[in-house]
Amino acid sequence: MRFEVQVEVRLREGIADPQGQTIERSLPHLGFGGVSGVRVGKSIRFTLDAASEEQARAEVADMCTRFLTNPVIEDSAVSIEAVDAAGVA
Amino acid sequence: MRFEVQVEVRLREGIADPQGQTIERSLPHLGFGGVSGVRVGKSIRFTLDAASEEQARAEVADMCTRFLTNPVIEDSAVSIEAVDAAGVA
Repeated sequence: MRFEVQVEVRLREGIADPQGQTIERSLPHLGFGGVSGVRVGKSIRFTLDAASEEQARAEVADMCTRFLTNPVIEDSAVSIEAVDAAGVA
Repeated sequence: MRFEVQVEVRLREGIADPQGQTIERSLPHLGFGGVSGVRVGKSIRFTLDAASEEQARAEVADMCTRFLTNPVIEDSAVSIEAVDAAGVA
């Protein structure tokens, strides 16, 4: 089976986010008000071939812990969607 | 009204993604098979105070075009969710 996977990698709460702070400080100068709490993370998308959704989820969880995130400062949110071989959901 | 906003910034199709290619090449060496088409984007989250959902959407769309993305090589997907003042959806 084929799956479309999205992994969102976010800095944990309390970890400083200088990129987010820079965006937040810049927006008012560009005329955008009312914005607070800007946090910048990564969005990693890929296609995964696996025997079952269960196996796909286990593989992605393992990938996140061992490779895609730094678990000390980051956590991740995973979304997995089965698609047919032609890539249509 | 208060909104939780997520902007996913993605490289457009056909634009080279060296970071994604590096991840894709590394995964098999770590024992993760079946992964293809890795693309790395940004996930920007923030809180926005706006008069209405319509105004919030317009402001975020404008922000994406003028500041958060480079429209030549990137596009964006926006999700907006209204929350009460305490921050609960």
